[in-house]
Amino acid sequence: MNFLEERIIKDGIVKEGNVLKVDSFLNHQMDIALFDQIGKEFKRRFAKEKINKIVTIEASGIGIACIVARHFNVPVVFAKKSKSINIEGEMYVAEVESFTHKCKNQVIVSKKFLNPEDRVLIIDDFLANGCALQGLISIVNESGASVEGIGIVIEKGFQSGGQIIRNLGYHLESLAIVDAMDASTGKVTFREQPEWDSEQL
Amino acid sequence: MNFLEERIIKDGIVKEGNVLKVDSFLNHQMDIALFDQIGKEFKRRFAKEKINKIVTIEASGIGIACIVARHFNVPVVFAKKSKSINIEGEMYVAEVESFTHKCKNQVIVSKKFLNPEDRVLIIDDFLANGCALQGLISIVNESGASVEGIGIVIEKGFQSGGQIIRNLGYHLESLAIVDAMDASTGKVTFREQPEWDSEQL
Repeated sequence: MNFLEERIIKDGIVKEGNVLKVDSFLNHQMDIALFDQIGKEFKRRFAKEKINKIVTIEASGIGIACIVARHFNVPVVFAKKSKSINIEGEMYVAEVESFTHKCKNQVIVSKKFLNPEDRVLIIDDFLANGCALQGLISIVNESGASVEGIGIVIEKGFQSGGQIIRNLGYHLESLAIVDAMDASTGKVTFREQPEWDSEQL
Repeated sequence: MNFLEERIIKDGIVKEGNVLKVDSFLNHQMDIALFDQIGKEFKRRFAKEKINKIVTIEASGIGIACIVARHFNVPVVFAKKSKSINIEGEMYVAEVESFTHKCKNQVIVSKKFLNPEDRVLIIDDFLANGCALQGLISIVNESGASVEGIGIVIEKGFQSGGQIIRNLGYHLESLAIVDAMDASTGKVTFREQPEWDSEQL
């Protein structure tokens, strides 16, 4: 079990409806020392890619992306979510529709901050159906930049988002993949992943 | 002129209606090396306070708060903004009304993440009328925690927010205070501040 899986077991709370609450360390209160470990591990997993920019989405992706960015020495661009269509200036806009939530949202990035020379690492806290992630990929591709990798902190492996992104050929790394959760016992089952090289952590 | 003022002069854009666009380095694309300098300077200015938690508000405060938090070795809690009143669980909620925008918003933090032992540094990117900041202060006070300091990256000194907060006795530090902007010439006038001790930067 890696440091993140251990932390999920310790502080995560399983709720009915396949909800995993990790708001005490990941997406409401944020443990910066943990984010730093996450940054080191992403740097190790994407060591071969020549990343020059990190792209994430508001709000809970931003803190992780900023700490991860220190390990790559690159700037972060965060996409905005909006229900409106009142866009000022030159923006990349992706319409994303949630299959489960039946709602449409826009993912927006200013054209100034993505260009064909950019080699992008996408970072986000959660991947379930992958709706927001699909919007981010769409925007990066539209700009002519390349998606060099996608780093996710927690993937819900029993939902389709991760598999679809891997099927499309993207280099997706999820630090913890939850294959099952049981709200009655609180038990979380993780997918086995290759042993981490703890020397490098 | 300090490093931040220099960066505002170099990359900030003054628009009609007293709008200062700093989206290339502060609140859309984020320069993490600059955030690190900001963190060092806040640590110097709040060196005497025994901060154990940083509180900020989504979305653009989060990145700065996380990098600043590394200099204090403390966790970050970010407040959520909402127009809804559909709050699940135990939350601190502050209703804030914008004097200029005539709109009401809620600022929300889970009760789990603020308690009377907390000694809070509030961090945000901008301070103008101070509407969001008033909501954050209200929530920290409601929890029984203390506001030890408030660190703002850019204050619009020609709007009332900063003065009100100082009148109320809070230790507010703004790294750059803009006293005037001219959209026709692009000129930005900063308020003079005590010399920084550059040795410590």
